[in-house]
Amino acid sequence: MTVSAEPASDRCATAGLVARRKRGRALEAPFYTGEEFFALDLAAIFAAHWIFVATEAEVPEPGDYVTVDLGRYSVILLRDDDEQVRAFHNVCRHRGARILSDAAGSTGNLVCGYHQWTYATDGALLHAGQQAPDFEKSCWGLKRVGLRSVEGLLFLCLAPEPPADFEEVAEQVRPYLAAHRLRHTKVAAQVDLVEHANWKLVMENNRECYHCEAGHPELTCTFFPTYGYRPDEIPDRLLPAHRRYLDASAELARECDRRGMPYEPIEELSGRPTAFRVQREALDGAGESYTRDGRAASRKLLGELDTPRLGRLSVHYQPNSWFHFLGDHAVTFSVLPLAVDRTLVRTTWLVHADAVEGTDYDLETLTDVWRRTNAQDGALVARAQAGVRDPAYEPGPYAPTESHVEEFVTWYIERLKEHQNR
Amino acid sequence: MTVSAEPASDRCATAGLVARRKRGRALEAPFYTGEEFFALDLAAIFAAHWIFVATEAEVPEPGDYVTVDLGRYSVILLRDDDEQVRAFHNVCRHRGARILSDAAGSTGNLVCGYHQWTYATDGALLHAGQQAPDFEKSCWGLKRVGLRSVEGLLFLCLAPEPPADFEEVAEQVRPYLAAHRLRHTKVAAQVDLVEHANWKLVMENNRECYHCEAGHPELTCTFFPTYGYRPDEIPDRLLPAHRRYLDASAELARECDRRGMPYEPIEELSGRPTAFRVQREALDGAGESYTRDGRAASRKLLGELDTPRLGRLSVHYQPNSWFHFLGDHAVTFSVLPLAVDRTLVRTTWLVHADAVEGTDYDLETLTDVWRRTNAQDGALVARAQAGVRDPAYEPGPYAPTESHVEEFVTWYIERLKEHQNR
Amino acid sequence: MTVSAEPASDRCATAGLVARRKRGRALEAPFYTGEEFFALDLAAIFAAHWIFVATEAEVPEPGDYVTVDLGRYSVILLRDDDEQVRAFHNVCRHRGARILSDAAGSTGNLVCGYHQWTYATDGALLHAGQQAPDFEKSCWGLKRVGLRSVEGLLFLCLAPEPPADFEEVAEQVRPYLAAHRLRHTKVAAQVDLVEHANWKLVMENNRECYHCEAGHPELTCTFFPTYGYRPDEIPDRLLPAHRRYLDASAELARECDRRGMPYEPIEELSGRPTAFRVQREALDGAGESYTRDGRAASRKLLGELDTPRLGRLSVHYQPNSWFHFLGDHAVTFSVLPLAVDRTLVRTTWLVHADAVEGTDYDLETLTDVWRRTNAQDGALVARAQAGVRDPAYEPGPYAPTESHVEEFVTWYIERLKEHQNR
Repeated sequence: MTVSAEPASDRCATAGLVARRKRGRALEAPFYTGEEFFALDLAAIFAAHWIFVATEAEVPEPGDYVTVDLGRYSVILLRDDDEQVRAFHNVCRHRGARILSDAAGSTGNLVCGYHQWTYATDGALLHAGQQAPDFEKSCWGLKRVGLRSVEGLLFLCLAPEPPADFEEVAEQVRPYLAAHRLRHTKVAAQVDLVEHANWKLVMENNRECYHCEAGHPELTCTFFPTYGYRPDEIPDRLLPAHRRYLDASAELARECDRRGMPYEPIEELSGRPTAFRVQREALDGAGESYTRDGRAASRKLLGELDTPRLGRLSVHYQPNSWFHFLGDHAVTFSVLPLAVDRTLVRTTWLVHADAVEGTDYDLETLTDVWRRTNAQDGALVARAQAGVRDPAYEPGPYAPTESHVEEFVTWYIERLKEHQNR
Repeated sequence: MTVSAEPASDRCATAGLVARRKRGRALEAPFYTGEEFFALDLAAIFAAHWIFVATEAEVPEPGDYVTVDLGRYSVILLRDDDEQVRAFHNVCRHRGARILSDAAGSTGNLVCGYHQWTYATDGALLHAGQQAPDFEKSCWGLKRVGLRSVEGLLFLCLAPEPPADFEEVAEQVRPYLAAHRLRHTKVAAQVDLVEHANWKLVMENNRECYHCEAGHPELTCTFFPTYGYRPDEIPDRLLPAHRRYLDASAELARECDRRGMPYEPIEELSGRPTAFRVQREALDGAGESYTRDGRAASRKLLGELDTPRLGRLSVHYQPNSWFHFLGDHAVTFSVLPLAVDRTLVRTTWLVHADAVEGTDYDLETLTDVWRRTNAQDGALVARAQAGVRDPAYEPGPYAPTESHVEEFVTWYIERLKEHQNR
Repeated sequence: MTVSAEPASDRCATAGLVARRKRGRALEAPFYTGEEFFALDLAAIFAAHWIFVATEAEVPEPGDYVTVDLGRYSVILLRDDDEQVRAFHNVCRHRGARILSDAAGSTGNLVCGYHQWTYATDGALLHAGQQAPDFEKSCWGLKRVGLRSVEGLLFLCLAPEPPADFEEVAEQVRPYLAAHRLRHTKVAAQVDLVEHANWKLVMENNRECYHCEAGHPELTCTFFPTYGYRPDEIPDRLLPAHRRYLDASAELARECDRRGMPYEPIEELSGRPTAFRVQREALDGAGESYTRDGRAASRKLLGELDTPRLGRLSVHYQPNSWFHFLGDHAVTFSVLPLAVDRTLVRTTWLVHADAVEGTDYDLETLTDVWRRTNAQDGALVARAQAGVRDPAYEPGPYAPTESHVEEFVTWYIERLKEHQNR
C-alpha cells in the first residue's frame, strides 16, 4: 500500500501507546480518537489484511460490478466473462480520474469518462486515443487488487504481500459454510449504516453481549444472552436461559451429527494475522432463524437443506466482519472505517437464489431483528465514542464476559507491533 | 487536566508570540485563529481556572442535573440529596461511555446506558454486573470535578490544583450579591447563542462600549455610553449623557448608603488568576432595570428588596463571564469556547423564585434588551473574526475607552506566561 | 505577503516532490491533495503573481466596488472619484474587522461597522472617534494592494514586489484587445461555479481539448477539436474538422489583415513569471461567436467593429485565467482556489455598454455554451480529483495533444522552484 510515510513524531507517539497497553483494560483514548492512529489503522490493518467487502451474489452476471471505498482507495469488483470475480483499482492510468462512479452496475469494457481510455474487463488497456509512437499500451492496464472468494464471500487485500495464512483459515471455515451454498443465493436486502464511532468500538461492541440484555430486546428473543460467559460464571438471573441453551445445543448437535455438518467451535481470535472464530450454535425461541419468534423467514431453505432447525453458524472474522448463516438465509456484516469517528456498517441479507419476495419471504420479517439491533448498536457506540474522547476517560476493566473484546484488542495490538517491526 | 502534550514546535511558536505582545495594541492574529492557541487556551485558561457555568437555580431539587460541555470534557452538575450541588465527569468508568446525554434533567442513581454500571448520586459505584472476584467497586466511582457556589453562582475547575485566590475574591464579591438572594431565584429564560468568533473576541467585545452608540440602540436606552471613559476624556457629544450619569449616580449612592449596600468599584482585572471587577452603577431612563424604558420587568423584586431603583450591580469575571444584578432580576453570561472561531454564549435570566410569568413578569419585556444586544454583538464579533484571519491584519491601537479590553488581554498574557513557566 | 512560515518538514516534502517531477507525466498526488501544497500554492503562486479577478465593467461608476476573496485575503476594488480603480485590504486598521461584507455595491466613505472608523475612498483615515493625543491618523489608512488594468481587465498582486514582466506582457496583449473596447462594455451575466477539484486540475483541464469531443458537445459546435494537435498528429477522424479549420483560418486571416488586427499566436506558457498565450483563431459553424450555431449573440458588436466574423481572440493567462473575445461579446474566466479540493470558477459575459437585454441579445443564447461547458468540466475535474487522491494513482503519460497542460505544469514547477530559492 502506498501510504504517505508517518511523521516520526506520530510514530513515536503511537509506538509508546502500543507498548504500554495493559491487558484486562480497554484501550487508551488516542487509539479511538487520534488521527495518527486512524492513519496507522488504515495502513497496518486495512491495507495489510484480507478485508471482507462483498459477496458473489452482488455480482451475479458477467459484467456486473460493485465499487468499494476503503480509506482513500476505490476498488472495482467485476465478474469477468469467465465467471471469475476480479478486482481493480478504480483509477484511470492516464490522469487518474475515477472510472466508475456508481456503487454498483453492469458494464462491458471499462471506459474512463474523461479522455475515453478504454480497458477490457480483465483490465488490459484497449484504446487511449492518439499517442506518441513509443506509447506502450501493455504498460498501462488497470492495476489489479488481490481478491479471494471463500464460498462466495469476497475478501480483498491491498497489500502486495498479503498475509500468508488466509488460505489455511479458508480451508477450516469452508466445511462449515458448504451446505449453505452461498454462491446460489441472491441479495434480498442491503443496508448501509454510518455509525458515529471508531471502527474498533464497532468491532468491540460486536464481540460481547454484556450489553445485550438491556440493549437488544429483539436480538435476545433468539440469541442466548449467556454468550461470552464461562458456565461457572453465568449470573443467576441468566440460569433459565442457560438451561434452555443446553437443551437446544444438545438437539442441534444431534441434527448436525445426523447430517455430517461440523458445528464445534474453532477459535483463533489472536496470535495470527487472519484471526477468526467459527461455531454453529443453537438459537432460542423456535430455533430456526434470526427472527423475532425464531421461525424461518424464507420458506425456500438455502442449498439443499432439509430443515431450518440448524441454529446459527456464526463466523467472527478479523479485522472487519461477522456473519450469521441460518437454514433459510444468511446475513453478512462488513465494517469499513470512514473517519476516526465514523464507520460504515454494511449489512447484507442473502436468500436462496430462487426465493421470491412476497411469496417465499417477507422483507420486513427477514430484516427486522438486525435492522433494529444495528440501530441500537449504532447509538451505543456513539455514546462510547463521545465518552472516550473526554480527557477524563481512562480505560476501565473488562468483565469476564468481555473476553472476546479483549481477544480482539490483543490481536489488534499484535498487528500494530508486527507493522512497526517491518 | 489531561491534555495531550503540545508539540515542541507549537510551544515555540506560541511562546514567541506571547513574549512579543505589545501593550496598547490588539493581539496578533494567531491568538484568535491558530489551532495551537485554541489548544493552549483550553489547557492554560479553561482547564486551569474557575469557570462560571451555571446557577443553582438551574438545579433546584435533589436529583436535578445539568451537563456542561467544556472543550472535550462533559461535566455533570447534580444536586444531591443533602442539597449540595456536586460535579462529576460524565464518563463511565467501565469503557468510557457518556452517562447522561441530555443537557438537563432529573435522575435517581446514575445508570450508564451501555452495560448498566450504576452510580449513586455521590458518584459511588453501586452495581457493575458480573465481575471478576478481585474487582474492587470502591476504585471505580465517578471522578469528581471541583465546584464552588458563590451565592448560587456555580464555578467549576478541572485542574487538580485550582487557583488559590478564588475564595478571597468570592469574599469580596459576596456582600454585593447578598441582597439579591440568588439562591431564591428561578430561571425565567435561558438562551444559547453560538457566535462565530474566538472566545477572546467575545470577551473583548464585552469589555468596551466604544461600539455601543452605533451598535446597541436598545442597550444604550439605559446603559450610559460613557462607560470606559475617564471623566476628562468624555467626548463632547456624550456630555449630556455624562451629566445624567452623575445625577443618577448620586441618587444611587444615597439609596445604597441608606440600606448599607456596597456599591463602590473593586477592580482587579489583571495581576491575579481570579481577576474581576464589581460595581453597582446607575442606569439611565427610569433607572430601575435593564429594559427598554428602564422600568422593572418583574413586579416581584429579588430577595427582600424594597425598591427597584438600585441600578445595576455588574460583575466582570475572568476568564469567561459577566453578570448584571438588578432589583427585579439578574442576568448571567457564560462564554464557552467551541472551536477556535466558534463560541457559545449562554445567557440566563433569573427572577424571584415565586414570580409568576404573565402575572409578575412578561418574558418578552424581561429578555428584550439582551437578546437584541447579544445578536448585535454576535454579528460584530463575526466581522472581527473574519478580519483578523486576513493575512493583511495587523494589530491596531486601543482607544482610551478600551482600557478594560487591554486589561483583559494583559491578564490573558499573564496567564499564558504563568502556564509556560510551570 | 504575510504567510505563516511553512514548517521545515513540509518544506522538505514539497521540495523533494518538486525536484523529482518527471516531464511527460502528470504531477504526483500531493500536488493536488496535500494541505502543504495548497499553502505553498497560495504563497508561491497566488500571493506572488498578478491575478485576474474582475473587469472594470463591474465597477462602472465612482463609488462602485467589488470585494474579492483570495485565500484568507479579502480585497476591495473601488472606483474612486478620479475614475481610477484602486484596491485595498478589506481590514479595519483598528481591531481588524471586515469593512465591507457584500460581494459588490456602491459606497461613499468606507465606514467600519464595529467602531465607526471612517476611511476616504482613497483609503485615508478620516475619523476614529476619541483617541489618545499621540494618535496619528496618517499612520492608519487602509493598506493598498497592487492593481493593474489591461484594457479593462483587472489584475491584482498581493506581493510587495510583483513580477517585473507584467507590463511587458500587457504591451504584447493590448493590440489584440484594443478593437474590443472592453472599457465600453457592461456585465450581461456573471456565474460562480464551485468545482470540486484542486485549482491546477481546473487549469489543466482548460489547457487541452483531448476531452472535448466526448465531453463538450455544445462547445465543439464551434470550437475545433483539433486544438492542441500538431498538423501531422491529427487523427483521421478529425481530418474533416481540420480541413474546415484551414479554410476558416484563411478567411479569418484575410478579414484581420484587411482591418490591421493582429491574429498570429504569441505563446510563452513557461519560462517567465507572467506566462501567457494569445491568438485570434477561427470558429466552426457560422464562425461569428461562441454560440450553439456560431452566430453572434448580441446585435450590438463590441467597440466599432463592423463584422462579427472575427473568430475568437483567446488569451490564456497564468496562473488563473482564460478569455475569449468575440466580435459581439467577451467572456472571462477567473479561477480562485477555495480549498485544496475546491475551486471557484467565475465566468463573466460582457456585451457592448449600450446593448439592451431582450432587444440586442438574449441571455440564454449568450451564455448557453459556456454554462454547459463549465458544468461538464466541473464534473470531469471532480472525477479527476477523486482519482488522484486514491493511493493507487500514479502519474500517467501526457498525449501529444496535451502539450499545453505540460506547459502549464512546467511553468508551475518553475514558479515553485523560484519561490524555494528566494
